[in-house]
Amino acid sequence: MRSAEEMTLNMLMKRECYRQTGTCTGGLCVGWNAQNVMWAVTDDLDKEFGTDYHERLKKWILHSQQNSLVVAGALSDAKGDRSKSPSKQVNPDSNVHLVEKREGGIVVRGAKVMICGAAAANEIFIMSGSDYREEDKDFAIAFVVPRDINGLTLVECRHPSDERELADGFDSPVETGITQAYLLFDDVFVPNERVFLAGEYKYSGNIICYFTANYRSCIGACVTEQGDVMIGAGVNMARVNGLSAKTFKDKYVHMAVLNETTFGMGVGAITMGWQHPVGVWFANDLMAHVNKVHVATLPYEVKRTLQDISGGIVETGCFPSCEDFNNETYGQYVQDCIKAGSCSADSRARAARFAEWLTIGAGVPGCMHGGGSLDGVKLVIRGATPMEEYAVMARKLAGIEEEILEPQG
Amino acid sequence: MRSAEEMTLNMLMKRECYRQTGTCTGGLCVGWNAQNVMWAVTDDLDKEFGTDYHERLKKWILHSQQNSLVVAGALSDAKGDRSKSPSKQVNPDSNVHLVEKREGGIVVRGAKVMICGAAAANEIFIMSGSDYREEDKDFAIAFVVPRDINGLTLVECRHPSDERELADGFDSPVETGITQAYLLFDDVFVPNERVFLAGEYKYSGNIICYFTANYRSCIGACVTEQGDVMIGAGVNMARVNGLSAKTFKDKYVHMAVLNETTFGMGVGAITMGWQHPVGVWFANDLMAHVNKVHVATLPYEVKRTLQDISGGIVETGCFPSCEDFNNETYGQYVQDCIKAGSCSADSRARAARFAEWLTIGAGVPGCMHGGGSLDGVKLVIRGATPMEEYAVMARKLAGIEEEILEPQG
Amino acid sequence: MRSAEEMTLNMLMKRECYRQTGTCTGGLCVGWNAQNVMWAVTDDLDKEFGTDYHERLKKWILHSQQNSLVVAGALSDAKGDRSKSPSKQVNPDSNVHLVEKREGGIVVRGAKVMICGAAAANEIFIMSGSDYREEDKDFAIAFVVPRDINGLTLVECRHPSDERELADGFDSPVETGITQAYLLFDDVFVPNERVFLAGEYKYSGNIICYFTANYRSCIGACVTEQGDVMIGAGVNMARVNGLSAKTFKDKYVHMAVLNETTFGMGVGAITMGWQHPVGVWFANDLMAHVNKVHVATLPYEVKRTLQDISGGIVETGCFPSCEDFNNETYGQYVQDCIKAGSCSADSRARAARFAEWLTIGAGVPGCMHGGGSLDGVKLVIRGATPMEEYAVMARKLAGIEEEILEPQG
Amino acid sequence: MRSAEEMTLNMLMKRECYRQTGTCTGGLCVGWNAQNVMWAVTDDLDKEFGTDYHERLKKWILHSQQNSLVVAGALSDAKGDRSKSPSKQVNPDSNVHLVEKREGGIVVRGAKVMICGAAAANEIFIMSGSDYREEDKDFAIAFVVPRDINGLTLVECRHPSDERELADGFDSPVETGITQAYLLFDDVFVPNERVFLAGEYKYSGNIICYFTANYRSCIGACVTEQGDVMIGAGVNMARVNGLSAKTFKDKYVHMAVLNETTFGMGVGAITMGWQHPVGVWFANDLMAHVNKVHVATLPYEVKRTLQDISGGIVETGCFPSCEDFNNETYGQYVQDCIKAGSCSADSRARAARFAEWLTIGAGVPGCMHGGGSLDGVKLVIRGATPMEEYAVMARKLAGIEEEILEPQG
Repeated sequence: MRSAEEMTLNMLMKRECYRQTGTCTGGLCVGWNAQNVMWAVTDDLDKEFGTDYHERLKKWILHSQQNSLVVAGALSDAKGDRSKSPSKQVNPDSNVHLVEKREGGIVVRGAKVMICGAAAANEIFIMSGSDYREEDKDFAIAFVVPRDINGLTLVECRHPSDERELADGFDSPVETGITQAYLLFDDVFVPNERVFLAGEYKYSGNIICYFTANYRSCIGACVTEQGDVMIGAGVNMARVNGLSAKTFKDKYVHMAVLNETTFGMGVGAITMGWQHPVGVWFANDLMAHVNKVHVATLPYEVKRTLQDISGGIVETGCFPSCEDFNNETYGQYVQDCIKAGSCSADSRARAARFAEWLTIGAGVPGCMHGGGSLDGVKLVIRGATPMEEYAVMARKLAGIEEEILEPQG
Repeated sequence: MRSAEEMTLNMLMKRECYRQTGTCTGGLCVGWNAQNVMWAVTDDLDKEFGTDYHERLKKWILHSQQNSLVVAGALSDAKGDRSKSPSKQVNPDSNVHLVEKREGGIVVRGAKVMICGAAAANEIFIMSGSDYREEDKDFAIAFVVPRDINGLTLVECRHPSDERELADGFDSPVETGITQAYLLFDDVFVPNERVFLAGEYKYSGNIICYFTANYRSCIGACVTEQGDVMIGAGVNMARVNGLSAKTFKDKYVHMAVLNETTFGMGVGAITMGWQHPVGVWFANDLMAHVNKVHVATLPYEVKRTLQDISGGIVETGCFPSCEDFNNETYGQYVQDCIKAGSCSADSRARAARFAEWLTIGAGVPGCMHGGGSLDGVKLVIRGATPMEEYAVMARKLAGIEEEILEPQG
Repeated sequence: MRSAEEMTLNMLMKRECYRQTGTCTGGLCVGWNAQNVMWAVTDDLDKEFGTDYHERLKKWILHSQQNSLVVAGALSDAKGDRSKSPSKQVNPDSNVHLVEKREGGIVVRGAKVMICGAAAANEIFIMSGSDYREEDKDFAIAFVVPRDINGLTLVECRHPSDERELADGFDSPVETGITQAYLLFDDVFVPNERVFLAGEYKYSGNIICYFTANYRSCIGACVTEQGDVMIGAGVNMARVNGLSAKTFKDKYVHMAVLNETTFGMGVGAITMGWQHPVGVWFANDLMAHVNKVHVATLPYEVKRTLQDISGGIVETGCFPSCEDFNNETYGQYVQDCIKAGSCSADSRARAARFAEWLTIGAGVPGCMHGGGSLDGVKLVIRGATPMEEYAVMARKLAGIEEEILEPQG
Repeated sequence: MRSAEEMTLNMLMKRECYRQTGTCTGGLCVGWNAQNVMWAVTDDLDKEFGTDYHERLKKWILHSQQNSLVVAGALSDAKGDRSKSPSKQVNPDSNVHLVEKREGGIVVRGAKVMICGAAAANEIFIMSGSDYREEDKDFAIAFVVPRDINGLTLVECRHPSDERELADGFDSPVETGITQAYLLFDDVFVPNERVFLAGEYKYSGNIICYFTANYRSCIGACVTEQGDVMIGAGVNMARVNGLSAKTFKDKYVHMAVLNETTFGMGVGAITMGWQHPVGVWFANDLMAHVNKVHVATLPYEVKRTLQDISGGIVETGCFPSCEDFNNETYGQYVQDCIKAGSCSADSRARAARFAEWLTIGAGVPGCMHGGGSLDGVKLVIRGATPMEEYAVMARKLAGIEEEILEPQG
């Protein structure tokens, strides 16, 4: 991604992707972002340390493109006790780390958690998850491995209403699904040509900084499209309930405003971004993080509005199973109860389960903490807002000549 | 319930009940309210029509008290096409109705839907669900039946993450559960001593009016306690995550403000209520419905805040199953990943699943449409707000002497 | 005020009072509350210290009632440096304090600020403004003085758009006004029979505690009525703009919900209150403070909604003066521009200035900090919310047996 | 403005402009936008009607640039009865219109209202304010006049706290001010070279459409900077109150999130825009209008937060005048009361008046209706949101094969 135009196009593609599949493949976005971020960081590293990480990465990317490999990215470590750094943890495997440097490669251990898309990927791109100092230098690593490599266990996670995906008929409203896992590395050997950072901790902060700027500006694209689908689900629900669109027009507009915000703000952050000397484009840090605040909060309101429009059939969790709907004895009575307008009972049932899936089922995206927690995001905003400059500016406008300092003690 | 004091005590008991069980037994509240409402409406009816409904009800209530019967109430009909009245429906069974009056009783048919607590009750108290006119007089009925009566089928419903309740260990975090059903009446005979309304449609509107005032003022009690449990769940999550309460203090206060609002507003509505000549106390209509607006909306924010505090382990839906947690081969590795502070991995897992259950699992209450939909509630508020009086008052204060009328056309 | 009923009636009277006058006489409410609070605190004091403050207060109240005296109350001190207690201030007069005890009375100095209604009162009731310790005992005082007493200077304050009150015609839309002042005590002598606390600091905390519970539960009454007037102003604006009420129906309901909340929650807090042994009724502390949060925040949304309904004529601050409206040369042209529907240009002008006055003029109440600042209010809520109890309750429901403690360090 | 880059730069300049002056010169933005819009519309017109409007405009723009003329724009007509079109008004001058076409020019009459910056401009650029049909063709006009032209009367408006601008010392906190006027045209002759539309109504809708897209995307720039100044004012208030920034850190972040949203969303709307064949760039319509929703609502929350931080000295409207502050007798006492931390009383007074000016004084921008009313904006959003397409997409994902139509009747 060498320009704002390319990144904006990428946002449009993400929007289209969710539209086609109903699935947000967060982990694949992480994988794609990882390559852009490390493209720049390896350049930072090579220039200072004379390493050849950038060339290794280039070769691997070419290989990956030529073979159309699906790549998931993994950033979040299990972390353990949040008040201690990785090297101080009782369990050293709370964070993925370098165990040993051998002739042709490195050996790694530790856990990456909440990794989306891993089971569906050919390869997994691992990056260190924080800004490390000297004492934690073994945790400053980046590498890529095939998903099925020896010593790597993927523990697939449970999410809300996951067993519904195994159900029959309308109880399982969407064909696609999501995959999320804990990745447990147990002395995995990674050959050198797949290693892009191995202990040079100095630029580990840049990994986070570059990654979050781009990931948090683009993340709005999926969220917007999920919201658009929710508008559509609302339109359908109103109709199968036998109610006119007019009744809900303000609610649709309300949803559209919220949806477009995460897209527009993301594009804004990208447009106000900057180009790294090696050619990669990174979004404006402050604006990308403001976008993440919206991504973490606005979808709740969109979902609430869809539940408001849809009625009790979606929101109270009180709707018969597909099995009862088709029961030989009383199924017809159930179907007669469900029919509300000119549509079939089946359409109303499907529309209702789909709205449930979107708002309180397996289709709910984890927008609050996915891509980083809200409180962490706010810390970045605090750091990136020039409050002192604003205070001086306000003082000037107000005609205050005295310097006004922060109180002591 | 003969006074504001008794009703306020009832709110405190509902709060305590949720605290002990983690279950909101909405249907039983409906059952209890049904008896109070019909206590007044049968009095209205007997005075005008010379019927003996009040005496029948009294006898049945005494019987029910003496035998400690658990009574669920049922109000919502399946309705069918919302733009047509019951007698105009293609499917006459979209609403429960009188089929035939026999010597010793009546025969009824039709469906009541989204009825909470029915499967756990001994008896079910049915009331007509709207304000009917002459043409729909067969739909103006009220009666009580044993749950297991011949001709009545209960179709238990599916709710989000319901299969989780069947899971082992922490995947099923709470022992109690909820029961919600469709009630299908197929020519059920109800003896006269259990019939409290059978065609005298004139006061069918009062049933709704009295019922909603009391139900919607008291409903805040459960909602408040659910919110208090969510504060508690947040405190626990912060601790098992190894984080200090101080970090989240503003969030706890935010939750407390939202929680107390539905309780305080409910008590306010009750206090500003009125006593029916027969002795029952009814809450202030406007204030009860304002309370329902808060009940329908504030819990979303409480849940969002709990997810904010809890972190990705609760909100992203990315947390291993209890089975994997206990797996012989990699279970220990998973447990080591989950341990974050001084608490055991098991406690963190339980606390996380519980917070998930509360915010996006089987424990989420249907506050938006349970007890009536938000848009219907707002119609009542619109009707109960004396806007013309406010306009005159504003005109007087503003010194406008001309009469200001609604524009024509 | 000896019961919840009396206090609720008082709320209804406050609502009526604003309706009649368009003025919120906060200071007089403080004066009335001061008498109730000191009725209880003097009883606390006399029982422990053998003083006769209660009897003195009783006599003065009888005198005040017999002579129909208007009494303003004053609580807030100028305070000075918030990080230091009163006795540590560079300027000892930052807080009102005892200078000297003489034979027949006491001498006081210091400033009370932001005191509403003082200029319109016959007498001013002063209470100490915080919970003091031994070293600050001279600041623990309560007494009443005539407004015109020697040594007391009232410095009347400026508020937004205050000069508009002196304007002609519709530029000054409301006849009544507000008075707010700084009270500067410069060695004022107060005879003993008007002194109700003079150094016995032990119960100074009760003054604040009792006062805030009652003041912050009742304060919603004025705020509600201000909001009702805003609904009325909105109805009028829609009509003078030539628009149908139907367009804005959701907005009126939105305003009504917000308005009724501060009233209903206040009544709820009162109902859940308690009776002091001496007979005074005090509201529930937690709920009163939750109500103050709403009082501090909801009116902003009500005003925003009124501006939304009213249009640019009210909100952009772009509307000709009454003088230009009546100008001989171009006044008629201006009037022709202003006429929008069937009402006169004059009515539209008055309605617009009135809505401006309510939302961004001299009629805007200081709900955020009047009656105490929001952050202080939240501290009380934090203290009054039993978070540990909630945590235990959540643990029990979640089946967690381990004790979960606050992290160390 | 021929590209997204140029428009984004323009947003940065607007931000800087408010920063330097504390004034939002909305009318000059209108003037600047008018030239861009008519650049495209005259091209539309000339191509269809063979007119030479584009060439006239080009000449006038060159003249205006060469002479560094300050140009205000005027769009909003007085309108009169909103339910009738201009030609049906009782008062034909409710909208500016063509009276007569003469040899060398046209004669115009009618009122433009709420025009910002007119008194400070050299020239005023008038555009028709709606999408007109044949019967209203005389209202489809665009032209430019010197402010002091014969027959044009500017009636300067009153805005909240406007007399404060004439006050001494800190009571008048900011040196710059705003000018807003009603423009009354009384048979004004405009020579042909200054006329850019005179009756060709067909593209009058484009004027509105192009104008709103660009104006409503860029408007966020001033609003953002006003918000930044409010953060600065808050930082200063906390300090002069003697309180640490730490206490308010979450509030500053909250303000920053709101501020950056209107900027980022505006840049996003521009980036997703399109280029008119004649070369002008126009913003994305849907996103520009979503931005206007934020511009119309978020600043209320920013102001509320500043009042929250600032304390009663700013929000209650209870703060002495500069005159009393400097009074010979009691002025020193007043100053001693006002001093709260290590800053001078004068600095605290200035900081407080400035925060008052920003939140409830003459410095409050009319964001709700300035640049168009919120309800009108939402209509555009409704039209621009492809709801049917979303419904089909949701149906496809939900596996519904039946067509689901809007209910009849």
